Amino acid sequence: MSAVLEALRGALAADEILPLDDRYVTDATGVVPDAPPAAIVAPVSVDGVRAVARIATAHRAPIVVRGAGTGLSGGAIATPGGIVLSTERLAEIAVDPDDQVAVVGPGAITDRIDRAARRHGLMYAPDPASSARSTIGGNIATGAGGLRCVKYGVTRDAVLALDVVLADGELLRTGHRTVKGVTGLDLTALFVGSEGTLGIVVGATLRLVPAPADERSLIVSAADLDEAGRAIRAATGSGVRPSCVELIDRGALQNIDENLGTDLERRHGDALVLVGTDGPGAEAELSAIVRALDAEGLDAEVLTTEEGLRYAELRRSGRGTRPGTWKIGEDMAVPRSQVVPALAALREIGAQYGVSTEVVAHAGDGNLHPTVFTPRETGETAPPDRLVRAADALVRRALDLGGTLSGEHGIGRAKRPWLVDELGQAQVDLQRRLKAVFDPLGLLAPDGFLSDAETTPALTRDEVPA
Amino acid sequence: MSAVLEALRGALAADEILPLDDRYVTDATGVVPDAPPAAIVAPVSVDGVRAVARIATAHRAPIVVRGAGTGLSGGAIATPGGIVLSTERLAEIAVDPDDQVAVVGPGAITDRIDRAARRHGLMYAPDPASSARSTIGGNIATGAGGLRCVKYGVTRDAVLALDVVLADGELLRTGHRTVKGVTGLDLTALFVGSEGTLGIVVGATLRLVPAPADERSLIVSAADLDEAGRAIRAATGSGVRPSCVELIDRGALQNIDENLGTDLERRHGDALVLVGTDGPGAEAELSAIVRALDAEGLDAEVLTTEEGLRYAELRRSGRGTRPGTWKIGEDMAVPRSQVVPALAALREIGAQYGVSTEVVAHAGDGNLHPTVFTPRETGETAPPDRLVRAADALVRRALDLGGTLSGEHGIGRAKRPWLVDELGQAQVDLQRRLKAVFDPLGLLAPDGFLSDAETTPALTRDEVPA
Repeated sequence: MSAVLEALRGALAADEILPLDDRYVTDATGVVPDAPPAAIVAPVSVDGVRAVARIATAHRAPIVVRGAGTGLSGGAIATPGGIVLSTERLAEIAVDPDDQVAVVGPGAITDRIDRAARRHGLMYAPDPASSARSTIGGNIATGAGGLRCVKYGVTRDAVLALDVVLADGELLRTGHRTVKGVTGLDLTALFVGSEGTLGIVVGATLRLVPAPADERSLIVSAADLDEAGRAIRAATGSGVRPSCVELIDRGALQNIDENLGTDLERRHGDALVLVGTDGPGAEAELSAIVRALDAEGLDAEVLTTEEGLRYAELRRSGRGTRPGTWKIGEDMAVPRSQVVPALAALREIGAQYGVSTEVVAHAGDGNLHPTVFTPRETGETAPPDRLVRAADALVRRALDLGGTLSGEHGIGRAKRPWLVDELGQAQVDLQRRLKAVFDPLGLLAPDGFLSDAETTPALTRDEVPA
Repeated sequence: MSAVLEALRGALAADEILPLDDRYVTDATGVVPDAPPAAIVAPVSVDGVRAVARIATAHRAPIVVRGAGTGLSGGAIATPGGIVLSTERLAEIAVDPDDQVAVVGPGAITDRIDRAARRHGLMYAPDPASSARSTIGGNIATGAGGLRCVKYGVTRDAVLALDVVLADGELLRTGHRTVKGVTGLDLTALFVGSEGTLGIVVGATLRLVPAPADERSLIVSAADLDEAGRAIRAATGSGVRPSCVELIDRGALQNIDENLGTDLERRHGDALVLVGTDGPGAEAELSAIVRALDAEGLDAEVLTTEEGLRYAELRRSGRGTRPGTWKIGEDMAVPRSQVVPALAALREIGAQYGVSTEVVAHAGDGNLHPTVFTPRETGETAPPDRLVRAADALVRRALDLGGTLSGEHGIGRAKRPWLVDELGQAQVDLQRRLKAVFDPLGLLAPDGFLSDAETTPALTRDEVPA
């Protein structure tokens, strides 16, 4: 038994130390570390987390924090010999309807927070597609987005205050239980999206908003990408704020059809655009969008509530596996005006490198989730080089279009190789110095996006599983 | 001529160096430094700002950045012997209606940005009461709020990307021209509200939103604070998101009456609550609020558009001077449920210390602007001690109620003495170490909220002018 494990056993209850289960060492990338961690712990209290951090500091043991392991960028892959800290048992949810806040533990499932809020006529607005399984701690770590963000903002906008255990075990409280507050540097915002590199979030105060009484939606079946782009622009430029503007392209429609037996591709053509409105003005807003589409010569099909829910669900979870393929998924975001050029670039790159493509997108805020894939030939143990090069070309095109590597999934190990391409070496160095203020020994997420690539190899794309 | 001034003359055009005008050494506090700065500069280019920073670093000269000097917390008071850097000539505004962003210089007046956006059917949402005069750079420095923030969010929520000149003259670009983006630590959010302590903002990309086509409003004349509190709660708890929920109490109504010759106090009693809605659902939303008020037994007076604009303007600018008084204004924010206790505490503290009080509030987000004041007796050169103690008691009560020192004005020199009461010494020390990463020589805003109070005396309340 390692000294770290022995110390942890002395500080935690027996059932706060979990068996070395493979499910706890990776995330949705499925990439397993070369060697197991020293221990997997799931403290039931903030004091337990503080004890773990003190032990990690004393033993110079790395800590990787994990929520539900739904991350797509390798941010929760265990560091060999380190500590995996699961937040799953810090999952309390307390809604205060007067203050319109929820005070939650990091392990609370995002949808459960939303459901708790809705019992008081409120909602937790950010809705990543993984919300039925992902934890709020993971959402905070990655700065998660979702469908409704085009109207309601992202996780950063919803987090009012945080309790954070630092690497040395000290407890830091940031922010306020108030909607406004500018006292001191905004450390709350700095922690959101920091992917476990600065501290361990052990509690969060979340802003809730009134749940919309009414929801309406429509779809546009676009003959080509240009028509899809005009539909997106009509929706976002209609003078109202739609609650979602989503796109599913032909490739993704085919994938849904294959998985669910639907006939979406036949019915909707090259791309399906889904637009929603909500709130007391939902009907008037949808009408304004229909008029804007009409002015562009585009036909809108207004959906019933049931149909609207079904299309939203298709968008959220329709993309299934593609058995027998190698695939790499991206999360680029581009300025709104560059959505069509980005969609066109995907197909162009697909043709250039001889790989298949599909894309779903939070089109209203320019956030695209393209996938490039190739058939998995018998005996192949790694994806073909052209697939990796196609993904690389796609990322670089997003940057050329004024976009970013990651709209909402985070950088983690999977996208670390491109970090310097977006931020430049000077800013990466600055961010590392900021990390060192919080974590001078470099114990938190040492393989994460701020690690020095020369000493800690990043996850390479050919490790990404099919 | 000082060596600093000589170096500046060598690097800038003659008209980029301004005369040592007293208007450039203070802000709305009116507090003048003990000795003049070495130079006041107003560069016309980012390169000019970088040259100033390099000279400041070479000469170890402090830099205080200023916009329009409308700040209420002493954040733009010049440091004796240092450089005052005015952003007034970096005032370009470029609206991109497709991307729904404005790319602006820090010296752009906030209202001008909004007007430029409205020419494209868009708006810049944050609307501090000073927006006709304040600059976006100042708004970013303080993390400014406003009336519409209860629905649309604060400055932090509207800033997508920043160009920042660091103390050594290096140019840092943070964020993205995209609505979503989580690549790296969120330095954009860290700069918003940092009050010139981390870097010099020389450019900003702002998120715009569709300008609401319709605006509606109502008022409630409340017989007492409890009734006002019920009106506020009915408005925020009605299931819709009002675009403003403002309060003007009897003392502030009297002040407006005295300044404008109105008879608001007689007509509206102990407190006036103003509630607005906007967008395609404005009418339906206002009706929902009327019903919620009705359920509380409260009468709403629905306003015409003209009346609504007039009341909003009264709220924004009605509070005038109080000739012949000493006064101290606050900017506390409390959780929504604590608005009435905070209002009651103001009156209680007024009675206890024998000082007069008034308050206007962004009540929907718990942000109160109370003023305590006393008659200015002939021959008095400083406010009476009881006024200073009343202000102190008020701040401490806000903290006791789970609130914060500053909702939207910032800390600056005026509120620095209370910073540690809210954040604790450990967090203040941590924030100072973060500042040192950006500004290792401590040249930026050295008297600002992160300065060490033992070596640099804070602005004391008895310096606050009447």
